[in-house]
Amino acid sequence: MTDAKNALVAIRVDDAPARVKPSNYPEPFASMMGGRVKRPLGDLFGLNSFGVNHVTLPPGTVSALNHRHSVQDEFILVLTGAVVLVHDGGETVLTAGMCAGFPHDGTAHHLENRSDAVASYIEIGDRQSGDTASYPRDDLVAVRVGNGWQFQHKSGAPY
Amino acid sequence: MTDAKNALVAIRVDDAPARVKPSNYPEPFASMMGGRVKRPLGDLFGLNSFGVNHVTLPPGTVSALNHRHSVQDEFILVLTGAVVLVHDGGETVLTAGMCAGFPHDGTAHHLENRSDAVASYIEIGDRQSGDTASYPRDDLVAVRVGNGWQFQHKSGAPY
Repeated sequence: MTDAKNALVAIRVDDAPARVKPSNYPEPFASMMGGRVKRPLGDLFGLNSFGVNHVTLPPGTVSALNHRHSVQDEFILVLTGAVVLVHDGGETVLTAGMCAGFPHDGTAHHLENRSDAVASYIEIGDRQSGDTASYPRDDLVAVRVGNGWQFQHKSGAPY
Repeated sequence: MTDAKNALVAIRVDDAPARVKPSNYPEPFASMMGGRVKRPLGDLFGLNSFGVNHVTLPPGTVSALNHRHSVQDEFILVLTGAVVLVHDGGETVLTAGMCAGFPHDGTAHHLENRSDAVASYIEIGDRQSGDTASYPRDDLVAVRVGNGWQFQHKSGAPY
């Protein structure tokens, strides 16, 4: 649905196009995100200061590598199904209607769909400059450069 | 659910406490928001760069005065029921599973529940400094001051 100026007014989240690039990670990590589908929503409306994605996780897939941001705040709301939130304090099952927030420098986190049904959720993250993402379980560091990410080994060597 | 450090890990949105102050607007506008219930979610997790609220709109209630921001980007996702999005291009009915984004300096907007059933949605807005909200249909201007809003008449006189 568009308005008189052909700006998008509203869209059903299921109708939003999926992101063309399945993962920003370098290999071997990108392939570990197989099956995950991200539908950018905020970008469709020209939003800049934060991103909103609709994410679908089929059984056996994960949201991301376990990570925390140095600057970015993040928030998720589960829409359908159930996911396991893996955090520094353990694991917590989130079902539809549950939310979690991840302040910068807070717990590392990622989601796993260990159920037999598709799960979906909304993820929100700000886009402040100077951000880095650290991955306590993997040899990876991500540095925000412009609108993208530059990936390094923990040694500082580029991927 | 809290973790070992007593930080909140996750919460069902219906279990989040409702905002104590029903509306930030001065009268006569505050009373026009009667029935609307906002549950701040992002604040529960210590998120700073954007706010996330769960909002419940019973039949006959509205989300806000028709407004646009000069700096803040906003996004909504309807979770249950149906609302009418009133925007510069007309009116668009949004049902559960539909979303809309409002970039700063874009269309003015607000939601009305004209149905017989309760509607609910998630709203997200960034918290960048220097923001103002303008209200094309009302004698009101809001200026962001710290974490709050200062309300003026269009003449500049304070409320």
